[in-house]
Amino acid sequence: YMASACEVVGEPSDSGGRCGDQMKFCSLCGGDIVMKIPPGDNRERFVCGQCSEVHYQNPKIVAGCIPEWEGRILLCKRAIEPRHGWWTLPAGFMENGETAVEAARRETLEEANARVEIVGLYTLLNLPQINQVYMLFRASLQDLDFSPGEESLEVALFGRDAIPWDELAFPTVSHTLRFLVSDADQGVFKFRMGDIVRDGNQTTLTEHITP
Amino acid sequence: YMASACEVVGEPSDSGGRCGDQMKFCSLCGGDIVMKIPPGDNRERFVCGQCSEVHYQNPKIVAGCIPEWEGRILLCKRAIEPRHGWWTLPAGFMENGETAVEAARRETLEEANARVEIVGLYTLLNLPQINQVYMLFRASLQDLDFSPGEESLEVALFGRDAIPWDELAFPTVSHTLRFLVSDADQGVFKFRMGDIVRDGNQTTLTEHITP
Repeated sequence: YMASACEVVGEPSDSGGRCGDQMKFCSLCGGDIVMKIPPGDNRERFVCGQCSEVHYQNPKIVAGCIPEWEGRILLCKRAIEPRHGWWTLPAGFMENGETAVEAARRETLEEANARVEIVGLYTLLNLPQINQVYMLFRASLQDLDFSPGEESLEVALFGRDAIPWDELAFPTVSHTLRFLVSDADQGVFKFRMGDIVRDGNQTTLTEHITP
Repeated sequence: YMASACEVVGEPSDSGGRCGDQMKFCSLCGGDIVMKIPPGDNRERFVCGQCSEVHYQNPKIVAGCIPEWEGRILLCKRAIEPRHGWWTLPAGFMENGETAVEAARRETLEEANARVEIVGLYTLLNLPQINQVYMLFRASLQDLDFSPGEESLEVALFGRDAIPWDELAFPTVSHTLRFLVSDADQGVFKFRMGDIVRDGNQTTLTEHITP
């Protein structure tokens, strides 16, 4: 589904709920919400002053693919904000009731009308500042019958020497593609896990070793 | 934090919110919630009839450790339902603002008062029926100064030949420990990704190859 701006780049949103930074009423009883530490807990939560329900907020998973065809990589030019007009990998929020692999395949179908076979998990990237965990899978395009979905202006294949580095939408995408190009040069693809933290206009990736 | 029963074993809970299967009032404006497919979307959501806010529900990440000391594995006997009195790995819901590694380390400290150094991600298990994704990390215990946290009755080290297979709390734990014992026999530990689906009293693991 289409994400609000705050979901994708971490800007707090006035619209609230989706970013988990605003809650005024209890969704069960309609009572007023207060911030407090529930008994047996150790951090502040949204708690209903009327029915005492605790409304937890947790990170969300973004699942997507790096679809490949004969060494070229499929990218989507975004038709939506944020980063309208920038290139990205097909990816989006994992839904209840599906697995990460199913979510990655679905998002690729929705954004690029492309059918893929999943090769394996390639990057797992934590974005603690915006409460997201990215899971990007290597995938084989099944045919060349792809086209822009509703959230894309354009869908195209790029050789590894032709990736539009200066027009990539998100650090998760650029880090993942950098790993991919480097691994392809060496002929061995290895799973990477890391944390991406933003400081002003800079983002830093800290990689965790996974044997 | 302590999880309600529905979170851990997937039983729908009457208490609602935490399991994402109940929502009556908009948390932003207090208006009545209706189930409908929002414009541009393709599935039913909780939508506010008053302010039109869409309240999405997404899977949650459970992060934890397989703490090891000289080939033995630390397990916790649960002091809480579900599975009170059964053995488990220290694990719990990832919080906003932290990374999966931080969550795994925190849960190990909370449940076993144990300090670990993370070795690497070992299993990533999807539980689509209960909207959870488990991330379990291999970890080195830093010292033997562990003890039961509030959610544990007992914390102990088990040799690989002494794991209480018939008293393990969850399929995620038993599958992970089975992989670990098998890998330890062969001297090579490899990251595993899979989906666990329950059918009655049986659970089936489908493994995805990750190169």
